[in-house]
Amino acid sequence: MHIILIIRILGYLMIFLSGAMLLPIPFSFYYGESDYVFFLLSSGISALLGFIIVILLGKQKKEMRPKEGFAVVTFGWIVFSLIGALPAFLSGEIPSYTDAFFETMSGFSTTGATILTDVEALSHGILFWRSLTHWLGGMGIIMLSIAILPFLGVGGMQLFKAEVPGPVVDKLKPRMTETAKLLWMVYLVFTAVETILLMFGGMTFFDALCHSFGTMATGGFSTKNASVAAYGSGYIDYVIIIFMFIAGTNFSLHYQWLRGNFRDVFKNQEFRTFALIIGIATILIGIDTFFNFYTNIWDTLQFSLFQVLAIITTTGFGTADYESWSFSSQMILFFLMFVGGSAGSTGGGMKVLRIYLLYKFIYSEFVRLLHPQAVVPIRYGGTVVDRNVMMNVLGFFVLYLLLTVVGVIIVSAFNYDVETSFGVVAATLNNIGPGLGDVGPTDNYAHFPDAVKWILSFFMLVGRLEVFTVIILLSPRYWKK
Amino acid sequence: MHIILIIRILGYLMIFLSGAMLLPIPFSFYYGESDYVFFLLSSGISALLGFIIVILLGKQKKEMRPKEGFAVVTFGWIVFSLIGALPAFLSGEIPSYTDAFFETMSGFSTTGATILTDVEALSHGILFWRSLTHWLGGMGIIMLSIAILPFLGVGGMQLFKAEVPGPVVDKLKPRMTETAKLLWMVYLVFTAVETILLMFGGMTFFDALCHSFGTMATGGFSTKNASVAAYGSGYIDYVIIIFMFIAGTNFSLHYQWLRGNFRDVFKNQEFRTFALIIGIATILIGIDTFFNFYTNIWDTLQFSLFQVLAIITTTGFGTADYESWSFSSQMILFFLMFVGGSAGSTGGGMKVLRIYLLYKFIYSEFVRLLHPQAVVPIRYGGTVVDRNVMMNVLGFFVLYLLLTVVGVIIVSAFNYDVETSFGVVAATLNNIGPGLGDVGPTDNYAHFPDAVKWILSFFMLVGRLEVFTVIILLSPRYWKK
Repeated sequence: MHIILIIRILGYLMIFLSGAMLLPIPFSFYYGESDYVFFLLSSGISALLGFIIVILLGKQKKEMRPKEGFAVVTFGWIVFSLIGALPAFLSGEIPSYTDAFFETMSGFSTTGATILTDVEALSHGILFWRSLTHWLGGMGIIMLSIAILPFLGVGGMQLFKAEVPGPVVDKLKPRMTETAKLLWMVYLVFTAVETILLMFGGMTFFDALCHSFGTMATGGFSTKNASVAAYGSGYIDYVIIIFMFIAGTNFSLHYQWLRGNFRDVFKNQEFRTFALIIGIATILIGIDTFFNFYTNIWDTLQFSLFQVLAIITTTGFGTADYESWSFSSQMILFFLMFVGGSAGSTGGGMKVLRIYLLYKFIYSEFVRLLHPQAVVPIRYGGTVVDRNVMMNVLGFFVLYLLLTVVGVIIVSAFNYDVETSFGVVAATLNNIGPGLGDVGPTDNYAHFPDAVKWILSFFMLVGRLEVFTVIILLSPRYWKK
Repeated sequence: MHIILIIRILGYLMIFLSGAMLLPIPFSFYYGESDYVFFLLSSGISALLGFIIVILLGKQKKEMRPKEGFAVVTFGWIVFSLIGALPAFLSGEIPSYTDAFFETMSGFSTTGATILTDVEALSHGILFWRSLTHWLGGMGIIMLSIAILPFLGVGGMQLFKAEVPGPVVDKLKPRMTETAKLLWMVYLVFTAVETILLMFGGMTFFDALCHSFGTMATGGFSTKNASVAAYGSGYIDYVIIIFMFIAGTNFSLHYQWLRGNFRDVFKNQEFRTFALIIGIATILIGIDTFFNFYTNIWDTLQFSLFQVLAIITTTGFGTADYESWSFSSQMILFFLMFVGGSAGSTGGGMKVLRIYLLYKFIYSEFVRLLHPQAVVPIRYGGTVVDRNVMMNVLGFFVLYLLLTVVGVIIVSAFNYDVETSFGVVAATLNNIGPGLGDVGPTDNYAHFPDAVKWILSFFMLVGRLEVFTVIILLSPRYWKK
């Protein structure tokens, strides 16, 4: 365990964070607000801590191994949230540090769960920083899921090695750098395009940028109390629908079709499954809401499609109070929470790729029951899925549900009912934001006791980092020589 | 597909059933009731149908293969329920055939869910038949899980091949016959002993026998509206606690310890896990109910232990309304529903053996993440678990949860809330009886529309027959040559 090496990398991350914390300052000046002081202060603290660590520990000769990767990723997200909470806390805009940490972890984990009862009361600097944590978190996640996790062997992500864009290099490092550049470029371009399109719909530049951050990161923080419903605009709804779909798709695929390679995109099985699930869910919920809730087919389509995408991509934006829809629509949305976006997207949840592989796995088990001697390979994208990779996916599934069970029991111990306990665990572990019961689309997380807020912050982290990455740090075996 | 062979076996089963249907008649006479007419009539119908089939189809030369096994088991349970529903339906004691079928499937599947609002209004003959369906169903399940399923390769049950008592013979048939005799003897002895012990507690012979049937089959039908709570006796509660524990234990182990081989029993990992889970759940629920519900530690222990055993063994007897306990106790009970009894017991659910193997599997995945090159065998009972068997267990787990999801969505489409939808699927798929929400321990299933009753009957069947056995019949590939 090269602990010194890990801490040194965290030092570099603090220096990076100190830079990012300066970005809200122009908005602070533009809107004539004084919160820039707290960004300067927080940025200074982060830079100071970072430089002290980097200088004190000196250059490390040791090579980073997969083993250190788990710790760097996990503690990286924690450090970002601990320091990223400072501006809102120091400025007094979120007076409780627990709340500020929860909100920042919710941001960096692209969850979008908020403890704020009045979002619009915040200064523009803080609002921008809040949305920026989403965007930075989303950026980190794309890197993580496409360039890092496949090499750590977490939950079947090895399947991705073949899909990573950029030059094929054997060494990890140069490939990662190249991949990172390409993907960030794609991410940046989509964010810019969405911002412009939202401004065409009448949003201010500030609101458009914040909502684009929230969309592309599948985060869901809005600058309005009523979320996207505040604009009451079909145009804006559909722009966000399209970009939620984009954000929930594997970013390697975007790289493909931006290069004109459409065939590979439409042949991609995860992409097709993602589109299929969205289609079926929208039709089912559409039928239900058309007969019970909306008066015309256009409203039905707009609101059903928006909510299905907001949930499956784990964005969590709201244009309708789905808790007022009938129970079956709520249950479909609840299970979509666990499906999540595509692997290699910014979406959370279990990922469409894993769901697809689980489906193929059950099918192969049926075939094996009928033909016990047969060898039944599971295929993905034309190649046979390695049995160890399938085991990884299954291990992920079992562990994910075990965490759900533990989470529900813990939350219920604080006297929350069945619906809320399930809803809040689903909403945080899958990085969605709104859930069911007391955390429905019109509620927030303010009412939870501090202990629950810390536990839910942990669930946001665990879900975001594909579970194994975090949980492995809790095993004594990990820390052994 | 030897369909004729399957139908012929079903014919024999009808003849057997016609005999079983005569057993309530003595009680009918003893209590001076006239329901014996309907047992004679139903028995006659069953015998007639059976003999017609057996004689018409003649002796079959074809050997039964595993493939036919799935159909025989599934249709066997369905035919038993279809015909077994006749006495209650013909006598008018349950005027709706849907209700009578539901009640009988609930009996044979050892679920114990009832559509009756007033159990005590039934005649003694019908009450006895109702409890007898449990007992016969339980007998069938022990045979199925120890002697048939391991050879069909369903969901990891192959692990059992080693544990089947009796002489080790290569041919399936002689071994099955021998095994069946030994296990039925054990089952019979326990039922007799429990009946006597319950009579010592003041129960009539009739009530004692019916409750013993309900306990040993982990069914849960009672002859009282208030279930076991009607007796308000600590002695009776503890007798039933002990026999629920016995019924939830692998019957091969009973064969071992009745022969004096205690060491093997206490070394058995599934047995230890079963006891451990019961211990932890009782302590957690005990702490909760002690501080919030009961006034002394003896009541706490008695009611907590009873309810934990009633749920984990999937019996479903009630001595306390656990829906009045706090949410965390309810959630613990809810998840215990999915654990279920031991493999090779009469208990339903996913089975402790599978939960144990899933735990070992997750552990092995963590080890593999840390040492990617390592071979990490999963062991059970001193031997390495074959990878295909582990795959079976995982396939079972995934399919079981998929069914839960489908069930919850279907039930919620009939406008039942989140709690009820989850509760009713958990209670039927796991063969428990009482669930959560509208099917709590003080409720019943009378209020569901007929469509839901048929769907729930299907879930009881699927859960009871270890899922794959039934679902495989729905695949077109099964019926192909």
